[in-house]
Amino acid sequence: MKLWQKENTSVSKLIESFTVGRDKEFDQLLAQYDVQGSIAHVTMLGEVGLMTQDEAATAVLALKAIAEEIHQGTFSIQPDVEDVHSQVELLLTERIGDIGKKIHSGRSRNDQVAVDIKLYLRQEILNVKDAVQELFNLLITQSEKYKDHLLPGYTHLQIAMPSSFGLWFGAYAESLVDDLELAAAAYAVANKNPLGSGAGYGSSFPLNRTRTTELLQFGSLNHNSVYAQMTRGKTEKITAFAFSSIAATLSKLAMDCCIYMNQNFGFISFPNELTTGSSIMPHKKNPDVFELIRAKCNRIQSIPNELTLLLNNLPSGYHRDLQLTKEILFPAIEELKACLQLMGVMLEQVQVKENLLADEKYKYLFSVEAVNELVNKGIPFRQAYQEVGNQIEKGVFQFDFSKGLAHTHEGSIGNLGNDAIRKAFNQVVKKF
Amino acid sequence: MKLWQKENTSVSKLIESFTVGRDKEFDQLLAQYDVQGSIAHVTMLGEVGLMTQDEAATAVLALKAIAEEIHQGTFSIQPDVEDVHSQVELLLTERIGDIGKKIHSGRSRNDQVAVDIKLYLRQEILNVKDAVQELFNLLITQSEKYKDHLLPGYTHLQIAMPSSFGLWFGAYAESLVDDLELAAAAYAVANKNPLGSGAGYGSSFPLNRTRTTELLQFGSLNHNSVYAQMTRGKTEKITAFAFSSIAATLSKLAMDCCIYMNQNFGFISFPNELTTGSSIMPHKKNPDVFELIRAKCNRIQSIPNELTLLLNNLPSGYHRDLQLTKEILFPAIEELKACLQLMGVMLEQVQVKENLLADEKYKYLFSVEAVNELVNKGIPFRQAYQEVGNQIEKGVFQFDFSKGLAHTHEGSIGNLGNDAIRKAFNQVVKKF
Amino acid sequence: MKLWQKENTSVSKLIESFTVGRDKEFDQLLAQYDVQGSIAHVTMLGEVGLMTQDEAATAVLALKAIAEEIHQGTFSIQPDVEDVHSQVELLLTERIGDIGKKIHSGRSRNDQVAVDIKLYLRQEILNVKDAVQELFNLLITQSEKYKDHLLPGYTHLQIAMPSSFGLWFGAYAESLVDDLELAAAAYAVANKNPLGSGAGYGSSFPLNRTRTTELLQFGSLNHNSVYAQMTRGKTEKITAFAFSSIAATLSKLAMDCCIYMNQNFGFISFPNELTTGSSIMPHKKNPDVFELIRAKCNRIQSIPNELTLLLNNLPSGYHRDLQLTKEILFPAIEELKACLQLMGVMLEQVQVKENLLADEKYKYLFSVEAVNELVNKGIPFRQAYQEVGNQIEKGVFQFDFSKGLAHTHEGSIGNLGNDAIRKAFNQVVKKF
Amino acid sequence: MKLWQKENTSVSKLIESFTVGRDKEFDQLLAQYDVQGSIAHVTMLGEVGLMTQDEAATAVLALKAIAEEIHQGTFSIQPDVEDVHSQVELLLTERIGDIGKKIHSGRSRNDQVAVDIKLYLRQEILNVKDAVQELFNLLITQSEKYKDHLLPGYTHLQIAMPSSFGLWFGAYAESLVDDLELAAAAYAVANKNPLGSGAGYGSSFPLNRTRTTELLQFGSLNHNSVYAQMTRGKTEKITAFAFSSIAATLSKLAMDCCIYMNQNFGFISFPNELTTGSSIMPHKKNPDVFELIRAKCNRIQSIPNELTLLLNNLPSGYHRDLQLTKEILFPAIEELKACLQLMGVMLEQVQVKENLLADEKYKYLFSVEAVNELVNKGIPFRQAYQEVGNQIEKGVFQFDFSKGLAHTHEGSIGNLGNDAIRKAFNQVVKKF
Repeated sequence: MKLWQKENTSVSKLIESFTVGRDKEFDQLLAQYDVQGSIAHVTMLGEVGLMTQDEAATAVLALKAIAEEIHQGTFSIQPDVEDVHSQVELLLTERIGDIGKKIHSGRSRNDQVAVDIKLYLRQEILNVKDAVQELFNLLITQSEKYKDHLLPGYTHLQIAMPSSFGLWFGAYAESLVDDLELAAAAYAVANKNPLGSGAGYGSSFPLNRTRTTELLQFGSLNHNSVYAQMTRGKTEKITAFAFSSIAATLSKLAMDCCIYMNQNFGFISFPNELTTGSSIMPHKKNPDVFELIRAKCNRIQSIPNELTLLLNNLPSGYHRDLQLTKEILFPAIEELKACLQLMGVMLEQVQVKENLLADEKYKYLFSVEAVNELVNKGIPFRQAYQEVGNQIEKGVFQFDFSKGLAHTHEGSIGNLGNDAIRKAFNQVVKKF
Repeated sequence: MKLWQKENTSVSKLIESFTVGRDKEFDQLLAQYDVQGSIAHVTMLGEVGLMTQDEAATAVLALKAIAEEIHQGTFSIQPDVEDVHSQVELLLTERIGDIGKKIHSGRSRNDQVAVDIKLYLRQEILNVKDAVQELFNLLITQSEKYKDHLLPGYTHLQIAMPSSFGLWFGAYAESLVDDLELAAAAYAVANKNPLGSGAGYGSSFPLNRTRTTELLQFGSLNHNSVYAQMTRGKTEKITAFAFSSIAATLSKLAMDCCIYMNQNFGFISFPNELTTGSSIMPHKKNPDVFELIRAKCNRIQSIPNELTLLLNNLPSGYHRDLQLTKEILFPAIEELKACLQLMGVMLEQVQVKENLLADEKYKYLFSVEAVNELVNKGIPFRQAYQEVGNQIEKGVFQFDFSKGLAHTHEGSIGNLGNDAIRKAFNQVVKKF
Repeated sequence: MKLWQKENTSVSKLIESFTVGRDKEFDQLLAQYDVQGSIAHVTMLGEVGLMTQDEAATAVLALKAIAEEIHQGTFSIQPDVEDVHSQVELLLTERIGDIGKKIHSGRSRNDQVAVDIKLYLRQEILNVKDAVQELFNLLITQSEKYKDHLLPGYTHLQIAMPSSFGLWFGAYAESLVDDLELAAAAYAVANKNPLGSGAGYGSSFPLNRTRTTELLQFGSLNHNSVYAQMTRGKTEKITAFAFSSIAATLSKLAMDCCIYMNQNFGFISFPNELTTGSSIMPHKKNPDVFELIRAKCNRIQSIPNELTLLLNNLPSGYHRDLQLTKEILFPAIEELKACLQLMGVMLEQVQVKENLLADEKYKYLFSVEAVNELVNKGIPFRQAYQEVGNQIEKGVFQFDFSKGLAHTHEGSIGNLGNDAIRKAFNQVVKKF
Repeated sequence: MKLWQKENTSVSKLIESFTVGRDKEFDQLLAQYDVQGSIAHVTMLGEVGLMTQDEAATAVLALKAIAEEIHQGTFSIQPDVEDVHSQVELLLTERIGDIGKKIHSGRSRNDQVAVDIKLYLRQEILNVKDAVQELFNLLITQSEKYKDHLLPGYTHLQIAMPSSFGLWFGAYAESLVDDLELAAAAYAVANKNPLGSGAGYGSSFPLNRTRTTELLQFGSLNHNSVYAQMTRGKTEKITAFAFSSIAATLSKLAMDCCIYMNQNFGFISFPNELTTGSSIMPHKKNPDVFELIRAKCNRIQSIPNELTLLLNNLPSGYHRDLQLTKEILFPAIEELKACLQLMGVMLEQVQVKENLLADEKYKYLFSVEAVNELVNKGIPFRQAYQEVGNQIEKGVFQFDFSKGLAHTHEGSIGNLGNDAIRKAFNQVVKKF
């Protein structure tokens, strides 16, 4: 059944299978939002007189029944039905007759799917935000727990200066703060109502779009009908920017973990049950979870570009191309949530190697400490730098760090600033 | 001169030219911010006792003199000097002797360039925001001016429903509102102080990072020193996301203009002096400005991915790779501002064709109007749709639109909602 | 069951589901090639004495039985089995006991999956080449059929010079010639044998890699074992480059079709059953198939970059990240073949509008003809150009094209060169 | 001066600066090819009678003088001249009067720049191929020189099996073989003549395109005029695919070097003059050259996507957007050649650490050797694997590798196969 099927036309099976593709899979994810949107639309139609109040009430009741079926998992799109919108309209027509045929007044599938996607993304951005928050909490916890465990710091992958596990965990916590700034922007963009924009040019019906905005609890309208249509694809892309930023944080953290687990570094390890083996080398304990977090997050980072390639150079107005944003973005959202979860599962059980810096190979980590000591004695920095440099060249450099390191400024080894970071996190969360 | 040059080492010319590349070009853009950062750093060093108050005052004065030279255009990086940071330190040392050698205490070029880039991007995001605002104002003006000029609306590039120039201009104005949400997020990310994070692991000096944050009027600190370093590349990428979103709006608008200028459409035209000709076809009036806005904005949309390719799979800690973010992003900012300006120059002079919909080929634009009329007479929507569909199939469809169109809902032809759009714009602007 | 499972370890369900992901779906596609590779490996093991000849013969027989099951569609990877390699080894061990446990000698899953992917891609490149050839033939047929139907040619989307359907169809045929150059290069890269490279560092067993190369009919070996491992991901990316080039041709052709079907152009149309309708506008005949070819081919064009993001900045040696190349590339190959097929289905039924250029709006198409006539009378080109330009400016330009156009050079309207194009196509095909 | 400037039109400075952009920089690179193309065009015009033989001879002479000026470095595009094509035509008109005005007969700037770019890319592909060959030779030399130096091999960045510097260098040599397959395909695509296709629709002049093909020593024509125009952008993209593949090899090699130079690995080092220092840490010897090769090559890998974004969804026919392919691709070619050169400069001086595997931490590298010894004693592989695995679990695994490793198969430590790799390289080189 197709909503637009007229007499005397038939579309070949081949074309149908090509055009529908995997779309129904993703429409299933939209089903609850589709019904939610229809309830708002029908309620409004009843209020403005495009249906009677009785018709609207009947339709709302029938829609709520379908919502319950979706919740119970008994709703599905029949093989010969084109999409979720058609399936819902079909069920209504079967159940409440002519009233079902009235609900599409003042609406097109274009604004219908646009509102579905907005509702879906709005919710998923919140879900991702919650998963980010859980990981954030763990990272702060681990930062505090391991704040006294020193770690070599590298620049150019060369031994540089002393760092600590406290700094390392805390850095990734703070990274999530900035990532959420983008997610909050995506939330603001998703939290606007395109319903009532029809096929992208509005309608001659006296719709009350402010009312559906209120019923769907959107922050505001996508006012202009042409723009409301333009948000298809654009909302997905902006959401992808935000998720890509979170993914970049996870990917980098996963890369660090892979390197730190490498035997030449040997900074961290994990219980056997969190690592995997080899079909040929019996000694292997591989960091597959981190490698796959890295890889999946690198895929997620490719999505903004994939969506751009889909959308760019298309003139305004709906194009069928937009259907594919679902299959590009929706599975990635599930992957991102899984990556956030698994990163937490792993890091909760991390085993940190103690007393790392005692190894002779790390002694040059302290060259700046030595320079600073000279500066504290009144030697200009650039001159102190030369002096220590010459000691190193001649192979006579030594530094006794057993007396400990006194790093005290904001964000240094001895003063991690985790409270300030948590405060910043909470401020961004308020933007949602 | 290299800050790190020790006795007995020399770096071959070949390597120097390869590693420096085009970097000095972009360092020149950072010069004023580098000095600004140094003034804050030195002031703080004086306050915490790492320089005397007198030394600090002398250094600040000398730095202000350099700032003036930058402003006058007389500052440049000498051929044998590695970068802007070295050039400034060299000038200071020449002018104020040993005091110049003290200013690098508690600082690395890593946090120095990080703060330069933050200050530069923060300013450029504001500059872009202002250019967006100018274009926004013009689009709203044109939307109001041409609100009664109807335009065919297309879906699938097929004639669909009546639209208007009012809707069309207004749509792009509203698009800029959502684009600025991302720019505001980028501003929030850029508006944080990395100074004092040193090479990415802080310092044993008792720096006061809160003080430099205040002096540089940053919104807050990048607290964690390891994270402060991680913002290199990440800040650029988030800024690129935001600019890419603006570029997508411009690119789509430019594509619309190219199509509307095409003779088969013929919806808009421009004075001769805004079009260009052909070396072989004497009749041509080509829309080169729009084509180049489209093309340049498509390039800008490639930048987030280019930065991702540069950054991904690098472990934490500074890598020299980061140097290239400047040559990727900085020229694109200039291009984006030029595209925003030129779009305004063009659209200010647009000539809109009148009475477009009178052409017979557009009659099916009104099929939904006809359906809606039947619905208003009480026929269920789906049945009315079938009826009009049959008229069209039989070739008997007619619709008299001389009586005008009565589209009244929010965001429709007759109710553009430009006031609400302007209000939304102003609200986003407040986030900067 | 995991090949590497040791005593006392268990991997949590959560991690298993995360790490396996969708991989088994794609392993199913590799199953036939996995068995093919194992037959070659076992045959060789028998020959070099790592198995007895009898053991090898028994194993080959059992593998052939599995191959038949795959062919019949009765083979599948059991829920508790990790991958196709483990499933095959498990079946063998169940059926032929200890001999099954011997077949993994001198092999790792790393070179096993590498050879599977090479065999799979080699075959799929040939399949795509065949589908390209079918479309090529159709395009040449249509070019010949419509060679006398003129078409406006555009530059800058502005009316430029006369073109023809013959030229238009022929252009896309010739585009496929260049696309196949890349596909032939990808074929050469895929047609090399990585088997015997083990986990990427070879083996202490006296394997005969030249023999398996011969048995699997590869063009040559990936000689160096470290490089053989590096071809994972790289082969996929090079194949993606080639397919991306074909996709670009299809996407551009689809865009042309969408524009030519637009009512303002109206150059081509299709039978109703090849177009789709709207849920709201009863008059619509939408070009959804072309829009989806465009969109799917734009997605395919994103794959080289997605693979690059997965692979770049990874040091040499296997990483689990590589698993994801399958889910990135394999579905895209099916999509590409479908797009090639559907493009043929559509273009076979294209309806071409006659006598297009008689429309007054196209008269300036002939401005260069007029210039050339003056040149033929001896006026220098640049002067003739000025003269015709002035006629156009003054609105007095006329050109009578009823006498026909005499374009005679290679590749022009009157001399399409389709024979030469076909010859070039056949030459590229020989490279496979 | 603009070739298309008519009476009464002026183009504002702003628009001119926006549309010309950086184009003249790159046109300067095309100048020699532009003249070469013009010489062929004019020679042909003389032969087919569109100029007299005398006129053609005069024009050719004048063009050769310009070619010499380009060679001497005295040619430049004047500030008020639009592009290289206009500059050459201007010089001719100044020097040989009316004859200069005739040379543009049967040509458009569209096919003129297309042929320039083909000639330029054809040459640059050869230049890159030569630079690849030099690096290939060095890699093979180093592979042979260090074939007995063992190296730990990693999978999942975990210690895996013994490798060697011989294998490592040889792997990258072989990688270049596959890369050149793509470069040869790009060469085949670039080596076709678009001249004579005019603005993309051919011409009514009796041009002899076969003749210019011969004069310019192209392999064949781009036959179809519409397709000839389509090769703009497409040729650049295919070339970018090929260069991207070489860049991926360099980037991975550079990443390996950065890791091997890291003190935790410490596998290789370089003379001081090839490393760089830090402004704050006096002990640093940073691998900046490798980091910048990696970064620059990652940028190069972004170019296919950038070009795709520029080109996709544009209908057929020239668009001004194409101008930007020059500024995207041309500088990257210079960067790629520099990266190839610098990689050679560095690796020529590499210092390899001896006797690496004696370190206790590498003992599990030999677990597969131990398994294989058991297999050689007749134990089935899977059982031997379990046995060694249990030894490792219990901490009793030992392996004495002082007796040496006997890896003998093709492409293994003891049998690098460099001769076969060199042979394969030479075969690909023959395709150019």
